[in-house]
Amino acid sequence: MEKITQEDIIKFCHQNLILEFLGAKFVPIENDSVRIELFVGERHTNPYGLLHGGVMSTLVDTAMGAECLAQNKKVVTISMTVEFFKPFPVHTKILTDAKILRDGNRIVFCECKLIDEDGAVYAKANATFYVIGKVKE
Amino acid sequence: MEKITQEDIIKFCHQNLILEFLGAKFVPIENDSVRIELFVGERHTNPYGLLHGGVMSTLVDTAMGAECLAQNKKVVTISMTVEFFKPFPVHTKILTDAKILRDGNRIVFCECKLIDEDGAVYAKANATFYVIGKVKE
Amino acid sequence: MEKITQEDIIKFCHQNLILEFLGAKFVPIENDSVRIELFVGERHTNPYGLLHGGVMSTLVDTAMGAECLAQNKKVVTISMTVEFFKPFPVHTKILTDAKILRDGNRIVFCECKLIDEDGAVYAKANATFYVIGKVKE
Amino acid sequence: MEKITQEDIIKFCHQNLILEFLGAKFVPIENDSVRIELFVGERHTNPYGLLHGGVMSTLVDTAMGAECLAQNKKVVTISMTVEFFKPFPVHTKILTDAKILRDGNRIVFCECKLIDEDGAVYAKANATFYVIGKVKE
Repeated sequence: MEKITQEDIIKFCHQNLILEFLGAKFVPIENDSVRIELFVGERHTNPYGLLHGGVMSTLVDTAMGAECLAQNKKVVTISMTVEFFKPFPVHTKILTDAKILRDGNRIVFCECKLIDEDGAVYAKANATFYVIGKVKE
Repeated sequence: MEKITQEDIIKFCHQNLILEFLGAKFVPIENDSVRIELFVGERHTNPYGLLHGGVMSTLVDTAMGAECLAQNKKVVTISMTVEFFKPFPVHTKILTDAKILRDGNRIVFCECKLIDEDGAVYAKANATFYVIGKVKE
Repeated sequence: MEKITQEDIIKFCHQNLILEFLGAKFVPIENDSVRIELFVGERHTNPYGLLHGGVMSTLVDTAMGAECLAQNKKVVTISMTVEFFKPFPVHTKILTDAKILRDGNRIVFCECKLIDEDGAVYAKANATFYVIGKVKE
Repeated sequence: MEKITQEDIIKFCHQNLILEFLGAKFVPIENDSVRIELFVGERHTNPYGLLHGGVMSTLVDTAMGAECLAQNKKVVTISMTVEFFKPFPVHTKILTDAKILRDGNRIVFCECKLIDEDGAVYAKANATFYVIGKVKE
């Protein structure tokens, strides 16, 4: 397969219009991969003034999909489980930390933590993805 | 417990600022409960031009929480699993159909379908919630 | 496709040697499908003298797989989530109540309740299956 | 809290009669914790002659519960998700590798891998547990 660059991944990820709408950023990181960052604002909150679990779900789903892209796989999510460890406060930056656990031809298994800038973990997701095509032939 | 009205639920739900930001509506339905409706626009999409799974996750999480409110329980999500049956198209209205499966004192188990106006099911979630307090004393 | 009979399903299910070992029975039911029944004994218990969640997981996984067989699909489980509503007592019969939620060509989504003979629900599972072949050509 | 020893954990775990019935062993490991080992036999198999997912679910559920015991917490499982990466062959030893991700007062979040003796991962579970009491006062 042709090498997928971080630019390729980020370009594809920007087509997630919901991530743009939420204000998330795609940032290249050391292992040729990409991390999502979101500075949490009032508009992302639940009734307790904390980051809504649905936004957390959006970040992890997209970050795991981006890991698949890095393997030259376009995917759709089959199922995703998110576990919420503790509330994430507003006016703070949240980061994704995703990785592939099992890279099958048809099914890819991934996990993703949501962390703050000190590395504390606030939520963890695991998901299964179905491979629908390649990013580059 | 004092009766929780649909107005109580909707008022509380409007404090989910992310739902306002996404453009979702809370609509009273027959069984004293509340349903979420979202007219899916470009800003809600993934790179394939379809509704992003994270938005679906946001809708089901909130709709299940609203079911707990109807039982006079404020809750936080412990864990949520979403299964994605088929893609949901843009320019279409998506609706939640949530219910409580097991209403414990401390833990509430819920499920929620995402349907279109004809009742076709596009995704299904199940989740566990931890009870943190009452809506009304 | 050739019609899959309840006898076909039960014959195939009996090749689940673990179910035989646990003492489970496969019982034909009205909708051309099959239900698993287990009379819970001491050997199935956890330290609290109640049915172990792992046995419950074994029953639901197998029952959902049997539903796929009824659609002429041999499957392997991709992922399964089980939610435990309340403890199931020993010296009682537990029954599965499985159904298919979305029957895709490659991926099948199922759910399964665990009930007692009065229909009370003790646990609920949902799972995704990957289709690996047909029962009958 | 009084120190929980590996002997305490193993003694408690042996009250999981289903694990005895399956032939599983509880083995003390380096970090004061306990690992479950099962030599997979014909009686543990699915129709494909491979380890049944339900047995895998039983092992991970119990191993995660044992991690909670090591924190002096008796728990019941609220929900568990198991993802099946690849089939595990018969006549081979399978091992658990469990850890706590978030140790709350009421809710504990755990994960567990199932590995062979070379460390290859065959399945991964994550689960939430509700704390019902202490092992030692």
